[in-house]
Amino acid sequence: MEAKIEFIPQGSVTSPQGFYAGATYAGVKKKKAENSLDLGILFSEVPCVATALFTTNRIKSAPVVLSQERLWRGRAVAVVVNSGCANACTGEQGLADAAEMARLAAEGIGCSPEDVLVASTGVIGQQLPMKLIRATIDRIILSHDGGHELARAMMTTDTVPKETAVTVRVGESGFTIGGVAKGAGMIHPDLATLLCFLTTDAVVALDFLKFALRRAVDASFNMLSIDGDTSPSDTVLIMANGRAGNQMINQDSEQAGAFQQALNQVCIYLAKCIARDGEGATKLIEVTVSGAPSVAEARLAARIVVSSPLVKTAIHGSDPNWGRIVAAVGRSGVQVVESKIDLYIGDTCVVQGGRPIPFNEEKLREVLNGSEVTIALQLNLGKAAATAWGCDLSEEYVTINSQYMT
Amino acid sequence: MEAKIEFIPQGSVTSPQGFYAGATYAGVKKKKAENSLDLGILFSEVPCVATALFTTNRIKSAPVVLSQERLWRGRAVAVVVNSGCANACTGEQGLADAAEMARLAAEGIGCSPEDVLVASTGVIGQQLPMKLIRATIDRIILSHDGGHELARAMMTTDTVPKETAVTVRVGESGFTIGGVAKGAGMIHPDLATLLCFLTTDAVVALDFLKFALRRAVDASFNMLSIDGDTSPSDTVLIMANGRAGNQMINQDSEQAGAFQQALNQVCIYLAKCIARDGEGATKLIEVTVSGAPSVAEARLAARIVVSSPLVKTAIHGSDPNWGRIVAAVGRSGVQVVESKIDLYIGDTCVVQGGRPIPFNEEKLREVLNGSEVTIALQLNLGKAAATAWGCDLSEEYVTINSQYMT
Repeated sequence: MEAKIEFIPQGSVTSPQGFYAGATYAGVKKKKAENSLDLGILFSEVPCVATALFTTNRIKSAPVVLSQERLWRGRAVAVVVNSGCANACTGEQGLADAAEMARLAAEGIGCSPEDVLVASTGVIGQQLPMKLIRATIDRIILSHDGGHELARAMMTTDTVPKETAVTVRVGESGFTIGGVAKGAGMIHPDLATLLCFLTTDAVVALDFLKFALRRAVDASFNMLSIDGDTSPSDTVLIMANGRAGNQMINQDSEQAGAFQQALNQVCIYLAKCIARDGEGATKLIEVTVSGAPSVAEARLAARIVVSSPLVKTAIHGSDPNWGRIVAAVGRSGVQVVESKIDLYIGDTCVVQGGRPIPFNEEKLREVLNGSEVTIALQLNLGKAAATAWGCDLSEEYVTINSQYMT
Repeated sequence: MEAKIEFIPQGSVTSPQGFYAGATYAGVKKKKAENSLDLGILFSEVPCVATALFTTNRIKSAPVVLSQERLWRGRAVAVVVNSGCANACTGEQGLADAAEMARLAAEGIGCSPEDVLVASTGVIGQQLPMKLIRATIDRIILSHDGGHELARAMMTTDTVPKETAVTVRVGESGFTIGGVAKGAGMIHPDLATLLCFLTTDAVVALDFLKFALRRAVDASFNMLSIDGDTSPSDTVLIMANGRAGNQMINQDSEQAGAFQQALNQVCIYLAKCIARDGEGATKLIEVTVSGAPSVAEARLAARIVVSSPLVKTAIHGSDPNWGRIVAAVGRSGVQVVESKIDLYIGDTCVVQGGRPIPFNEEKLREVLNGSEVTIALQLNLGKAAATAWGCDLSEEYVTINSQYMT
């Protein structure tokens, strides 16, 4: 069945029916502006089918450990989030604090603490200032357009909030998917934590939700590289509250394809927002590798190219240094035959059959000076393709990340 | 048997008996100074047992392809090297040019072209200016103290030549090992090519030479990371001419241990020189991971930490941001138990049993402000250890690498 997927102008994580959010300034992060926020709650008026993907780092923050435990039932009502402190490498006290945060949020909402998940982003190795959180969490007012506030409460050195929502119509029925994310950076510069909360009012079976989230994340956040470091706090959560009243979506549903497609679009949109707003970034880089023997190889090659420091610095300087791109794919470990490689920067073919070909330098420089640079590598060995996103590497990145923590 | 290994003051790749070298300025690289050199020859008065390790990049430069082919016999007399052009992605013409370079060198020396290896470092995708090489290669004068000239002819954005030699005495017999290397950088910024030529006058069996080179490179150059990119030109070559007249060293010799130890020292010395002189580097970083369950895990963890952009920028800013180090080892994929980790920066313990402990901040800042920063991670899980070397990531790195190629 033909699905119609449309982005909602000013859409947010509370665009789907039955979701509410709000935030306040507790004082966990340094106040940068009059309207700083650092503590927020996302809440569904009915319990949700929920699942999440967490960091693969063996050092996991206390909120990750807690939320991972709580999600084994596949159910959640709310999530409480703070920025300014990651609550990582904080031992037993950290776990107790994360549990208390959930309890405090649950009291305000009137649900079981077991139904509340926790996420924190910020400096590692410092205890949460629980006094501040206890004193201020009551001030949070949950509203149906509170998604925008929540987006701001999750920001660290993010310069813009990252949120979106889409409506999906399949035949007679329809539903909405919303999402909010935070990306690279800290006020006290630290790890580039990824937090993403996705909401939908669709009725979705838990098994299919898990499957769809994994697929969407593989096509979006897992193809994103700011600097190659993985945070102990990374969390991508999806909550489905069923308010749309559609027929339950599972693997075999007519709506399964539309749901997957819409979820991918939301995740890719947010991943691109994060890449564009990477620490010190001035340009979004999109690398597509096609003609690979397998999807796994296409994915690996695209990721290696987009995260190569030499490619990233060249693009920062609008330098058409294609040798670095070819060399990066060469060292990626995927099958490559030099004499078969075609390479495009923007629309300009710079390498054909592994050899440089003459190109209009002025035109290419213009493309490289833009705010979005696309690189397309055709390996001409198979039919698999993949796209990865990243950003340029600027002097500003180094400056941000070499500032004193103490 | 007790071995005595001593570094030779001003030692070079021609310190071992019977090795000669020389260089000239051909014009392949832009002349930076009055005494610029870009074309050199290293030569042994008698044929050598020889072996080499080459780049793992699937895109291989023409000189790598040629030298790899020629070394199947385990024999070489000379190597001709240029800087300024990598002769990579240059197709059939590139292979013909590399072969011609070897032939020109062989004519001057009076040996078979098959006994001459080739190495090139520089911009990718440009043909070698063979006219310049033909016109100037005759000017090279080979001498026993020509090692220093060769070292300079290999430099690109290297700011200092990298060379050393050691004498080894085991009982009555003795021999010498010399080495020269180039590291990170290009005049037209490009890949951080590693070239290293090692020489020895020891009599060494080919099988043992291969084994010893692999072990030495694993403990040195393979533990080195400037920026994670691997060049299509990387070459580490060893030539043993037997002039010392010792009993042949093989796996079972009394001298095998001393030879290995001395070769490791030469390679580690050169690897540290390269790290210290990395593009834009202001500090050498040495990371030792101990208490790992296996050597493979210790090696992997040490490499991941030393190449983490967040660790590198923190050290650039003298920021005692230990959370980034713990998080990097956490994402390395090796076995880690958070509550067992001890972490030292210099002599200062900053994390014990996974938790931060109070430290003298002034003292630590002083250590971090030094030109060499050592990081020691004790995982307390096993007995294996490994050390890796790298450098800080500075604004200067970005500036160097974002300059126009064209």
